[in-house]
Amino acid sequence: MRAIRVHELGGLGGLRVEDLPDPTPGPGEVLVRVRAVSLNFRDLLMLKGQYNPKLPLPMVPLSDGAGEVAAVGPGAARFQPGDRVAAAFMPGWVSGAPDEVKARSALGGGGTGMLAQNVVLPETGLVAIPDHLSFEEAATLPCAAVTAWHAVVTDGQIKAGDTVLVQGTGGVSIFALQFARLNGARVIATSGNDAKLARVLAMGASDGVNYRTTPDWDRAVLALTGGAGVDHVVEVGGAGTLARSLRAVRIGGRVSLIGVLSGGAGEVSLFPVLMKSIRVQGILVGSVEMFEAMNRAISLHRLRPVIDRVFPMEQTAEALRHLEAGAHFGKVVIRI
Amino acid sequence: MRAIRVHELGGLGGLRVEDLPDPTPGPGEVLVRVRAVSLNFRDLLMLKGQYNPKLPLPMVPLSDGAGEVAAVGPGAARFQPGDRVAAAFMPGWVSGAPDEVKARSALGGGGTGMLAQNVVLPETGLVAIPDHLSFEEAATLPCAAVTAWHAVVTDGQIKAGDTVLVQGTGGVSIFALQFARLNGARVIATSGNDAKLARVLAMGASDGVNYRTTPDWDRAVLALTGGAGVDHVVEVGGAGTLARSLRAVRIGGRVSLIGVLSGGAGEVSLFPVLMKSIRVQGILVGSVEMFEAMNRAISLHRLRPVIDRVFPMEQTAEALRHLEAGAHFGKVVIRI
Amino acid sequence: MRAIRVHELGGLGGLRVEDLPDPTPGPGEVLVRVRAVSLNFRDLLMLKGQYNPKLPLPMVPLSDGAGEVAAVGPGAARFQPGDRVAAAFMPGWVSGAPDEVKARSALGGGGTGMLAQNVVLPETGLVAIPDHLSFEEAATLPCAAVTAWHAVVTDGQIKAGDTVLVQGTGGVSIFALQFARLNGARVIATSGNDAKLARVLAMGASDGVNYRTTPDWDRAVLALTGGAGVDHVVEVGGAGTLARSLRAVRIGGRVSLIGVLSGGAGEVSLFPVLMKSIRVQGILVGSVEMFEAMNRAISLHRLRPVIDRVFPMEQTAEALRHLEAGAHFGKVVIRI
Amino acid sequence: MRAIRVHELGGLGGLRVEDLPDPTPGPGEVLVRVRAVSLNFRDLLMLKGQYNPKLPLPMVPLSDGAGEVAAVGPGAARFQPGDRVAAAFMPGWVSGAPDEVKARSALGGGGTGMLAQNVVLPETGLVAIPDHLSFEEAATLPCAAVTAWHAVVTDGQIKAGDTVLVQGTGGVSIFALQFARLNGARVIATSGNDAKLARVLAMGASDGVNYRTTPDWDRAVLALTGGAGVDHVVEVGGAGTLARSLRAVRIGGRVSLIGVLSGGAGEVSLFPVLMKSIRVQGILVGSVEMFEAMNRAISLHRLRPVIDRVFPMEQTAEALRHLEAGAHFGKVVIRI
Repeated sequence: MRAIRVHELGGLGGLRVEDLPDPTPGPGEVLVRVRAVSLNFRDLLMLKGQYNPKLPLPMVPLSDGAGEVAAVGPGAARFQPGDRVAAAFMPGWVSGAPDEVKARSALGGGGTGMLAQNVVLPETGLVAIPDHLSFEEAATLPCAAVTAWHAVVTDGQIKAGDTVLVQGTGGVSIFALQFARLNGARVIATSGNDAKLARVLAMGASDGVNYRTTPDWDRAVLALTGGAGVDHVVEVGGAGTLARSLRAVRIGGRVSLIGVLSGGAGEVSLFPVLMKSIRVQGILVGSVEMFEAMNRAISLHRLRPVIDRVFPMEQTAEALRHLEAGAHFGKVVIRI
Repeated sequence: MRAIRVHELGGLGGLRVEDLPDPTPGPGEVLVRVRAVSLNFRDLLMLKGQYNPKLPLPMVPLSDGAGEVAAVGPGAARFQPGDRVAAAFMPGWVSGAPDEVKARSALGGGGTGMLAQNVVLPETGLVAIPDHLSFEEAATLPCAAVTAWHAVVTDGQIKAGDTVLVQGTGGVSIFALQFARLNGARVIATSGNDAKLARVLAMGASDGVNYRTTPDWDRAVLALTGGAGVDHVVEVGGAGTLARSLRAVRIGGRVSLIGVLSGGAGEVSLFPVLMKSIRVQGILVGSVEMFEAMNRAISLHRLRPVIDRVFPMEQTAEALRHLEAGAHFGKVVIRI
Repeated sequence: MRAIRVHELGGLGGLRVEDLPDPTPGPGEVLVRVRAVSLNFRDLLMLKGQYNPKLPLPMVPLSDGAGEVAAVGPGAARFQPGDRVAAAFMPGWVSGAPDEVKARSALGGGGTGMLAQNVVLPETGLVAIPDHLSFEEAATLPCAAVTAWHAVVTDGQIKAGDTVLVQGTGGVSIFALQFARLNGARVIATSGNDAKLARVLAMGASDGVNYRTTPDWDRAVLALTGGAGVDHVVEVGGAGTLARSLRAVRIGGRVSLIGVLSGGAGEVSLFPVLMKSIRVQGILVGSVEMFEAMNRAISLHRLRPVIDRVFPMEQTAEALRHLEAGAHFGKVVIRI
Repeated sequence: MRAIRVHELGGLGGLRVEDLPDPTPGPGEVLVRVRAVSLNFRDLLMLKGQYNPKLPLPMVPLSDGAGEVAAVGPGAARFQPGDRVAAAFMPGWVSGAPDEVKARSALGGGGTGMLAQNVVLPETGLVAIPDHLSFEEAATLPCAAVTAWHAVVTDGQIKAGDTVLVQGTGGVSIFALQFARLNGARVIATSGNDAKLARVLAMGASDGVNYRTTPDWDRAVLALTGGAGVDHVVEVGGAGTLARSLRAVRIGGRVSLIGVLSGGAGEVSLFPVLMKSIRVQGILVGSVEMFEAMNRAISLHRLRPVIDRVFPMEQTAEALRHLEAGAHFGKVVIRI
């Protein structure tokens, strides 16, 4: 089978298309014929060596993929050949609370990666994908969508009438907008680009704030909520935006801490956390159980993930550069 | 001012229109000019002496009303004359867990009742009503809507993709349908009338089951959920329906126990509760805090309560008989 | 290896000691050398054919056992030979919410049973047992203790200062008493026997009520709580006691529904559930994750399960009759 | 009556003993004859003008006090003259979620302060004090104890077998130790003083770590928990300790953010919050409902607050200096 492996860290130059032996599913495992994968910022950090400079090389990168079951190993009974499935970001986190063992099962970080024609995974780490989605659409779900669902729904317990703030138009933010809307919440979105703001308004956001033309966007958000602040911020900007997010959230509100986008020292004063009784919750993707609950919602509402662009497998480096450029709206996908 | 008082229990014959002295708001109190009230089954039980045969008479009946602030007492600062408000069913239950003191503050049960032109209430027991609602619409909210919100949202924590079963087309059930939809859930509704089922489908229910033509409606509900059962039943039928509801709910599901409609001994086997790990939660209306959260959702979605019919104050007995007949769809209202 | 199998349902006469081939652990499985098992009422119901009259026979009965790891299958890495372990009641319920697949993994119900010298189990369904416990003590934990922990702690979220009512002195009730005390709660216990009440008082219950000499024990419980009622009832008596339990619990309180002891139709009026906003939660044992959390508490406090009596394997029928007689205090154990 | 008022901010020099007119309780209010007050760091910050430099002067300082009811205003029915009561830190936060109106009711911040012989408060903002406590002991509860209870119990939902880390031996930390122990948790304590560590071990902490002799105390804490980290950190040190606390807490664990002790910019990297799925929850004291739940636990266990030293009213400045010196263990109290 064909796969792409990373042979050196530090940039995108270490990627090579290779012919590898086909893997065989062991007991309780499933062989998945991967049809599409999607990209996350974590993949870029991984390739640059910023995530873990000691990754064992060569390795197959990428965590997010969808495909069809090609074969099942002994005792595997959840799926049959032909079933359309996606792999959980951490196939070992089936349900319950996270722990170190579950966290280590994350794909694309040195062990199994999804940028290959065939992948073997434990059956308990797979989910059926909604019928109305293409493989390209389903491939966008494992990391960004589950993270957004975990933040807004599982942990955030958003309800109709609440107000959520989403930042920018990357994968997590667009899914957070969609899931907040599905659950009846009002969404305020920020972006540095008015055309993108027009798109999020068309998707159901009640208000958009351009953080370039309105650098003190937290004041704008307060004004939009009658001075009270939003109930929930889906914080993907890191230290660069958190200080303003803490000003834009209401007393007793929540901030889901997700992104590492803007890098830097990531240092911020926590004084408002104390004075406003704010909850700051780190969100590291989510479990198979969350993935399945999310898929029920996606199926019921026939919700479609937003795909920015689809690249062929040979243009993996171009796809990653496109993500890095930051001009995308939604998810960047590679067809396999 | 004009008011209607009950002078004897046992039926609707004890109602008399009377001229009573205007009440004056004390410290922390507000004088409300009542503009509309709505009816609940509890009002019928109250008048018949089935709720509490020892009610102090004469008394002003009814718990649910909306109007405008006419005057405020010393120290009252939450509202100003002219503000449009509704009274909470239990004005003493502001937030937190219920207790006996809070429960005793319920209106229309011997103390303050809403079927009067002017009523004095503690300011902490009032809520502002959504701008887009008429007084008639707002008067439907205090008991039925808050009960439905408490069951489905505050306690039920319904989320997008969940499935809720609502029974019949009375006030609580229609609000439960509306709130479940606002929060992205699928709704299956039962009714004994196909025309009513057509209306609930038009309001967003995914499926309707006629319990007259399908007496074993629980099997139909199981079939509609792939054999798994629904996540949540809003049970308003009492002993007459609970046995089937326990069969129609999934393992680990919830039943909100609300109604006393079908009366009888109310006895039912709880064996399925144990074997299916079901939660049965009694719901007795809700707090001012829940009312306010509900109003935020109603305002955001410009949701309109379903009014079956509006009667003038002089036809209070007719209005109650209309409710008793059980042919209504939504709430029965009296204009004052 | 030696095992005991049931060859016909309907009583204790169908039990036979047999020599069966030793099982071998497959991938992800562990071979456990069972050293002790404990009995539950479910085992009696199972043998009498009252639980499931269509059980596949012959079958190895009993769900609760502890022993040491004798061998591990391919890929099994959680335990090593020599490790002391107990099996979860439902080895397939690792964490998260219960579902039908997880429920079907319950031991001693037609598939794997623990009344054998050697048993093969999935490694994910085992837990390490606290160091200070003997195998006999550890064998008491899987059903009764996990049920009590789930009821009082995981679901009940009992906290210091709360009041819990436990009924009788069977396995679940004694564990509920112990766990409620570990978490700082006050415990009121009922029993039909003053000597047993003296023992529960010695174990930390604040008050005992003899339901033979005080048939309206619910009034006694109300009096002991200043008229308010307890926060939580661990209900093991079924329909025979539930009506009084609903009177003995406070407004907004909880009832964990567990037992099927007193059998009968199990019918009871739910009117108080509604009027007092009570939560009735069916509890069907619990997950591996709950078992592990419980073991942390047992280890920290060096808590010892209460064993009523230990029988040798050959006296399994006597042990079951002893349980049936109902004179026990704590758990009945069989050494293997 | 005698009271102490602050006439200028910036230090302790602005305190003056004065004779003020006796206040009279209005409707729903209670006149409390204050018998003891306790000190919090907030009081020092307030006097120095670091909390709010624009406080209206002169003002009566201090938030925490206990006394007996001297008279009740019209309509006030919760207490009677002679009842022993304490005031909640924010008498306007009765229950439910915090908001700006409730937060503004905090005592000792420009409105009502407790350093006076007589104080008028709303009856809904008072709690009965446990019978076994002296006024001096009860005066320690409103801020420090309720904060600790809110952090560890209401929000933290600590349970038997969990592990809590407390820092130093100030009021909040000692109460957190006591409440964690009441709820069956293991407690690891840090201090810069071995004699104080000996005292916390005597109070039930399992382990003490001297942060002077072990500057990388987070490693010591990890070692004490088998490398996993604690479940919950009660963080009172601010930016000076948070970075280590985030290393000492387990994946999925919680940090209650409370203190502003070590001042400074309060900036810290939140990267571990994300990577370890940590919850950081700001805790700003708590509600009357939490206070009452805490008092039930204190009464049941006859728990005694730890008083460092009691000063007479005339030595208020000395008492504040004693607190500022930081050598105390538990709470500093002033008798009135």
